[in-house]
Amino acid sequence: MPDPKSFHLPPEEFRRRGHALIDWIADYQARIESLPVLSRVRPGEIRAKLPPAAPLQGESFDQILADVERIILPGITHWQSPNFFAYFPANASGPAILGDLLSSGLGVQGMLWSTSPACTELETHVLDWLVPMLGLPEKFLSTGPGGGVIQDTASSASLCALLAARERATHFASNRKGCDGRLVAYCSAQTHSSIEKAMKIAGMGSDSLRHIAVDENFAMRPDALQRQIALDVEARLVPCFVCATAGTTSSNAFDPIREIARICGEHKTWLHVDAAMSGTAALCSEFRFIHDGLDLADSYTFNPHKWMFTNFDCNCFYVADRKHLIQTLSILPEYLRNQATESGAVIDYRDWHIQLGRRFRALKLWFVIRHYGVQGLQYHIREHVRFAQQFAGWVASDARFELAAPAKLNLVCFRLRSGDEKNQILMDRLNASGDLFLTHTKLDGKLTLRFCVGQTNTQARHVERAWARIQRETADGES
Amino acid sequence: MPDPKSFHLPPEEFRRRGHALIDWIADYQARIESLPVLSRVRPGEIRAKLPPAAPLQGESFDQILADVERIILPGITHWQSPNFFAYFPANASGPAILGDLLSSGLGVQGMLWSTSPACTELETHVLDWLVPMLGLPEKFLSTGPGGGVIQDTASSASLCALLAARERATHFASNRKGCDGRLVAYCSAQTHSSIEKAMKIAGMGSDSLRHIAVDENFAMRPDALQRQIALDVEARLVPCFVCATAGTTSSNAFDPIREIARICGEHKTWLHVDAAMSGTAALCSEFRFIHDGLDLADSYTFNPHKWMFTNFDCNCFYVADRKHLIQTLSILPEYLRNQATESGAVIDYRDWHIQLGRRFRALKLWFVIRHYGVQGLQYHIREHVRFAQQFAGWVASDARFELAAPAKLNLVCFRLRSGDEKNQILMDRLNASGDLFLTHTKLDGKLTLRFCVGQTNTQARHVERAWARIQRETADGES
Repeated sequence: MPDPKSFHLPPEEFRRRGHALIDWIADYQARIESLPVLSRVRPGEIRAKLPPAAPLQGESFDQILADVERIILPGITHWQSPNFFAYFPANASGPAILGDLLSSGLGVQGMLWSTSPACTELETHVLDWLVPMLGLPEKFLSTGPGGGVIQDTASSASLCALLAARERATHFASNRKGCDGRLVAYCSAQTHSSIEKAMKIAGMGSDSLRHIAVDENFAMRPDALQRQIALDVEARLVPCFVCATAGTTSSNAFDPIREIARICGEHKTWLHVDAAMSGTAALCSEFRFIHDGLDLADSYTFNPHKWMFTNFDCNCFYVADRKHLIQTLSILPEYLRNQATESGAVIDYRDWHIQLGRRFRALKLWFVIRHYGVQGLQYHIREHVRFAQQFAGWVASDARFELAAPAKLNLVCFRLRSGDEKNQILMDRLNASGDLFLTHTKLDGKLTLRFCVGQTNTQARHVERAWARIQRETADGES
Repeated sequence: MPDPKSFHLPPEEFRRRGHALIDWIADYQARIESLPVLSRVRPGEIRAKLPPAAPLQGESFDQILADVERIILPGITHWQSPNFFAYFPANASGPAILGDLLSSGLGVQGMLWSTSPACTELETHVLDWLVPMLGLPEKFLSTGPGGGVIQDTASSASLCALLAARERATHFASNRKGCDGRLVAYCSAQTHSSIEKAMKIAGMGSDSLRHIAVDENFAMRPDALQRQIALDVEARLVPCFVCATAGTTSSNAFDPIREIARICGEHKTWLHVDAAMSGTAALCSEFRFIHDGLDLADSYTFNPHKWMFTNFDCNCFYVADRKHLIQTLSILPEYLRNQATESGAVIDYRDWHIQLGRRFRALKLWFVIRHYGVQGLQYHIREHVRFAQQFAGWVASDARFELAAPAKLNLVCFRLRSGDEKNQILMDRLNASGDLFLTHTKLDGKLTLRFCVGQTNTQARHVERAWARIQRETADGES
């Protein structure tokens, strides 16, 4: 018998409101192309519409949903629009949304195996599935000394890799005694900023991160890496970590993992490979060149929440030898002790990342893989790459434009030959139009536009229309 | 016109499946009391039921949902059961589940203000709402130099507080140069293990964390803190961080924040207050004693995903001066530059935590606060505390039992007077029954049972039945 004074949403209300919200989301998807991709609100505009204090008494769902429409929606930049070509994709899908909904509904805490065995075992299992799906080295399987875990972001995963490398290099002394300033790490001048942030967080200091020069394709130069490591060793420093990137954020450059790994091997340096967006491409055998040499890496990470139709957050992080990671991050206070943990027969994922608590994120990945099947995922990845390659071809054949970097997969870096100012104007006009959204970077010191294809519902027509629009705005800008 | 070869879930299918899943969740809630609270599967049992490889071709939703029922459900420990009294609550609610569903459906990335202004502004606004709701000091409002942010867990928030303290103490040198081994931090012998983990992660070393002695109520002894800091200063070390806990995990002890703050003030030491579970109690003015002295703290964190009807993850983290936090964690690569950021008029939350990417988590908190209203939330918190106090009274009046710590709010620590073995047997019998789930800790070296009331649907009858069961199992165990 429910409490007569309860303020909880009654079950029948939950059903009714839940159905309505599912419909709202379906309708949102249906009308998304009619909304400006980049939000047009000015700073403070959303807050100004919100009441200064929380309501004392509960409000109706109709009011809340009306405010979603009136206040929230204008402040949304539509990452799920098929005309979103900015940054990187964050491509959600129906199965992912429903898998995540189930996770919210079950509401379990997966910090220990025993706090919901299915949360741990499904995660381990699905991450094992991904190893052959992506052609990853078998050493990342949980059935050997390695294994995978779902983290929130590649930033966190890379931090964990750096910490494990730091501990391995100091024989687990830095965990107890802190850093001593002798550890050095390496990435390229094009590596994601999360590595520098991780160096700060880990107490190793950003001054101890070497930004190795890149070649004309923006990939790390192994000769430069080798030289820098030799210099550091000579200075009695300890090279403990190299991050190679399979698909840099800025231009989708691919560091030569195999050559880098050879150098790491000489110095017993931890090799971490970050394939945040591009890793998903390895679903298709013709794109597996991006992982060449991965069999020599100590850790690897990619984000299904970027390009694998799985809504944020869902990062996959693999280690070749899980004991380093666990020994680095393990804690076991009395109130978390339990028989399963003591038996050693189970994985307790709280020892695989920064956080203690964790959500049942494997559900959405499981839903996605089962709904699409490997072939369905491959189909859409191939389509995205095909669209981007078409776009790159159009750019190359228009004399006003140039490609600023090799377009190997789904990202095209291009610019007007007429200089930064013209490119800025073009980008601003395109984004102000509301019809598409793209972002920029700098390559060779020049402002460069990035056109990234990967949104779930992007089809050939969206890419064609984007190119037509780019051409028109360029012509208008010149007239 | 949709692509005829698309493998995406068609919109009408999404509606149909979405409605069915909402119904599944409502039905789950309705039958949850018929399921054993603690999962009974053995290690490996879930994995053994899963196929060894991912499907090549997509499967139907009916199959997937059938497997949720057949494979996943037996592996769930039901945190949403009203008979869940273990660890701490993770109390979801209808409005939270729906708010989170909307977040999944919108699928935005909130790393920058400009990547979805509503995601940032609603978060800042709702965290400002919480300041008067909880009677927090005004300095945590975003309208002054402070402000709040949603993080995933208190572990991450406390790590950020430690990092900001580390940087403030070294004038932001450790970010560049790494740690030098002179920084010391303090917590009590009862503080959550996340602080020790944070010390390791931050490169400060667990040896530099002082575990200050506690009094007979398991609260930090300010005199012991003062002595230890004096010793460290004498040894030319730098006290940079103190974590006071408002409601320890083990026994719900409350460190004397005001006295600790006075000592921190003398040494310009950063004071962080962790109120992970108990912070929510401050919704009710009669429980605000838990925050006495908080006006002197530098940072504060609590988890709506524990006791405020908001499903995981939703941690709130406040700082008195946001510039320290931002300066510690800020990065700005070219590809993230944008007008709004350069204008300085907006918050970019990527500089407030470890991760770069972030989900629109404010929606679920906003839904919860608006649905319940402040008074609705207060009502349920008061009920939970009332139930726990009743339970504590029953324990106190049964000569076989003793209370092991003061029960000030919703956690009761108790044990049989007859020793560890009997308590272990009692706990195992209770948890094996499937009718309730509670966990243990050690206090004064003795095995102690923890009875924590806070699940959304827990009513008086669940607590009454739990006590009856405890009494019966005790009698059976003695016969």
